Amino acid sequence: MKKILLIGAGLSSSTLIKYLLDNAEQNQWELIVADQSEELARKKIGSSKFGIAIAFNAYDTALRNELISKSDIVISMLPASMHYLVADDCIKYFKPLVTASYVSDHIKNMDQDLKNKGLLFLNEIGLDPGIDHMSAMKIIDEIREKGGNIEVFESNTGGLVAPEFDNNPWNYKFTWNPRNVVVAGQAGARFLDRGQIKYIPYHQLFRRTEILNVLEYGEFESIPNRDSLQYIEIYGLDAIKTMYRGTFRKPGFASGWHMLVQLGLTDDSFKIKGSDKLSYRDFTNAFMPYGQDRTVEEKVCDYLGFGIGSETMQKLRWLGLFDKKPVAMKNASPAQILQKLLEEKWALQDDDLDMIVMQHQFIYSLNGKRKKNISSMIIKGQNQVHTAMSITVGLPMAIAVKFILNGVINDTGVKIPVEKSIYQPVLAELEQFGIRFIEEEFDLD
Amino acid sequence: MKKILLIGAGLSSSTLIKYLLDNAEQNQWELIVADQSEELARKKIGSSKFGIAIAFNAYDTALRNELISKSDIVISMLPASMHYLVADDCIKYFKPLVTASYVSDHIKNMDQDLKNKGLLFLNEIGLDPGIDHMSAMKIIDEIREKGGNIEVFESNTGGLVAPEFDNNPWNYKFTWNPRNVVVAGQAGARFLDRGQIKYIPYHQLFRRTEILNVLEYGEFESIPNRDSLQYIEIYGLDAIKTMYRGTFRKPGFASGWHMLVQLGLTDDSFKIKGSDKLSYRDFTNAFMPYGQDRTVEEKVCDYLGFGIGSETMQKLRWLGLFDKKPVAMKNASPAQILQKLLEEKWALQDDDLDMIVMQHQFIYSLNGKRKKNISSMIIKGQNQVHTAMSITVGLPMAIAVKFILNGVINDTGVKIPVEKSIYQPVLAELEQFGIRFIEEEFDLD
Repeated sequence: MKKILLIGAGLSSSTLIKYLLDNAEQNQWELIVADQSEELARKKIGSSKFGIAIAFNAYDTALRNELISKSDIVISMLPASMHYLVADDCIKYFKPLVTASYVSDHIKNMDQDLKNKGLLFLNEIGLDPGIDHMSAMKIIDEIREKGGNIEVFESNTGGLVAPEFDNNPWNYKFTWNPRNVVVAGQAGARFLDRGQIKYIPYHQLFRRTEILNVLEYGEFESIPNRDSLQYIEIYGLDAIKTMYRGTFRKPGFASGWHMLVQLGLTDDSFKIKGSDKLSYRDFTNAFMPYGQDRTVEEKVCDYLGFGIGSETMQKLRWLGLFDKKPVAMKNASPAQILQKLLEEKWALQDDDLDMIVMQHQFIYSLNGKRKKNISSMIIKGQNQVHTAMSITVGLPMAIAVKFILNGVINDTGVKIPVEKSIYQPVLAELEQFGIRFIEEEFDLD
Repeated sequence: MKKILLIGAGLSSSTLIKYLLDNAEQNQWELIVADQSEELARKKIGSSKFGIAIAFNAYDTALRNELISKSDIVISMLPASMHYLVADDCIKYFKPLVTASYVSDHIKNMDQDLKNKGLLFLNEIGLDPGIDHMSAMKIIDEIREKGGNIEVFESNTGGLVAPEFDNNPWNYKFTWNPRNVVVAGQAGARFLDRGQIKYIPYHQLFRRTEILNVLEYGEFESIPNRDSLQYIEIYGLDAIKTMYRGTFRKPGFASGWHMLVQLGLTDDSFKIKGSDKLSYRDFTNAFMPYGQDRTVEEKVCDYLGFGIGSETMQKLRWLGLFDKKPVAMKNASPAQILQKLLEEKWALQDDDLDMIVMQHQFIYSLNGKRKKNISSMIIKGQNQVHTAMSITVGLPMAIAVKFILNGVINDTGVKIPVEKSIYQPVLAELEQFGIRFIEEEFDLD
């Protein structure tokens, strides 16, 4: 029996656990699910006899060492900032490691050591990063093998509520960690646009959007995502003119969110003393100039330059930012107060399903002709456990674990799935689960 | 002979050094001026036989210990983040310490230990903080002693170029550390306005100004300064309705600077790779959306919503933001690139003099009548060595050092000059140097 150690049994681990247990008998696997909550781990394992639930604290060095030393492979679903704990032990005990997180500097520096030892740490193998890398690299490699030159790469991913359940003025519900949504973009964004490097500071990010169409699902709005420039080298696209990665929302979301940023409500850098004594109306008013004879609504409209009857104002009203309801949080940052409100308003309801939308657009030239390739993927959740997010994050990880254990993937060092030896087998099996892209190809000349 | 150790001989130490040397003979002092540059220290001492110049690196523990252990009092003009090195040694060797910096948490935590030992660390005794605290507390104490209730306190300070030398469209030149000006306000601001707490995020700060008049010097623009709320407790004004501290500039400065913030040019959070290959025009364009048929000037005007012939545009043009001149800095942050440009444009010329403007406004009630007290100070520089900034930062420190050494000030613990035992003797002597406030008192009923 090979032992797979999975650390973290949260929402995004559901489908990952299901795959590993479903395939455990055939592959002779034992799955140890270690989580702060042993009960949660047990619940996720259900009646399978191939799973073991263990109560686990990542800072418990003795237990961590014991569990890692006894496994054959480790999957870390911990917050990205905690992976280093697991990575250090994995090097010590010579165990391969799989995560869905961006490669940290700490892990990047382990590359040579891992190569010397013949060991693999595979990162960024979830949805975004993950499926985006693999599906993009498949097309990039195909174009290059035909002799084409890629001029434009634009890639967008969004975790949204499925359109049948999309019934609020923001056309958005939380299908993922709410905190990450509230503080998203605070480092600004940078990308390459027709040969020019573009920098966008946080407070301008949500007005710098563009509209794209995805299959029959209509229009989506793209918000620039962090540092796209680094992918020029990672994807090997040195001669590219446009390199852009973005986040999809439905049109109108960004202009509304821009107003929350302008107000200062997403600020996470300080705590409001006495925040428990404020109403949401007081909270909003605290960011407005004093004005004795103007309502908070009037002040916000004047300050941000929109009408009291505008769609933007309707979005802000719907959130409850002008309500006299108590904030009821002590010593909270503006971002924390806003998050609490959004968690009520943007909660997925019991029967709601989520949806993942991913699209790559390429412009390339081949034999003197310019062509556009649009490659789109839509995945809907099955239910509230196997959400589109859980499926698309968990399956690539689970499949990669299988291929590492059975030797199909035998790379070494610190890797992300941009190499054919990794993405080819993983994408092939993802197709069997319906995770596939629809490619459209157009002539531009 | 009593030994005074002064660490740091920069621009702001000139008047401080002059005072200490001028008074050395009478008081039997010896002044040790320790600076990275022994030459600079020697130059500042000039021909005085009471000064000794020493080459000094603050991280040289052995030398630091030796110098501090042999002195009777230490003045630290190091950057605020380095005071802890000196403070730790001063506790160890039982030496009083004087700085012009805001009290750090590190120093604040030494309070009880200092009180037990009977030792004084006096901080915030320069201009701002310093003269502002002392002059405000003098009026606050006077009003309270008469039985008045203070309702409003608004205080502003600005370091500007004197009006005779004010000849650029920003009505501003650097009279102080340029970097502090470029990154000013990045933590946002908070204050109390007619009973309501107000928070302003950085990207809104420079549009949240108000205009005030100072004596015959005309209008000044006030930009909110950091955290004014903490001074409610420090000044003992628990029942106050408005508590506001701001920075003075000439009207129009803030609206221009707001545009630099909106563009993202003051961002210090990332480095621009290949910044040495950009012109200032490229630099500005990097923050604009791509637009093939629009000039950078047109894009900036559209993006920020002002006309191509507007005063704001004139300010940006004058700075050279659209020039094809090379940036000529490697791997620099936007803020660093902007600072370099501003240092050329906003440099004080050889004959230029600077000016300090400080004003407090109080509204208080006394015997059933509401009154307004406006207390204003204007100080002009004498020359390029004894600038208004050097005079107003250095004299309060120097005078405090004298009174600590001769026992007139005998407080203990971590102090700032809000207590009468400190501000009274210091303000009295400052008056002899022409550093005095003009008080105007008005009835509001």
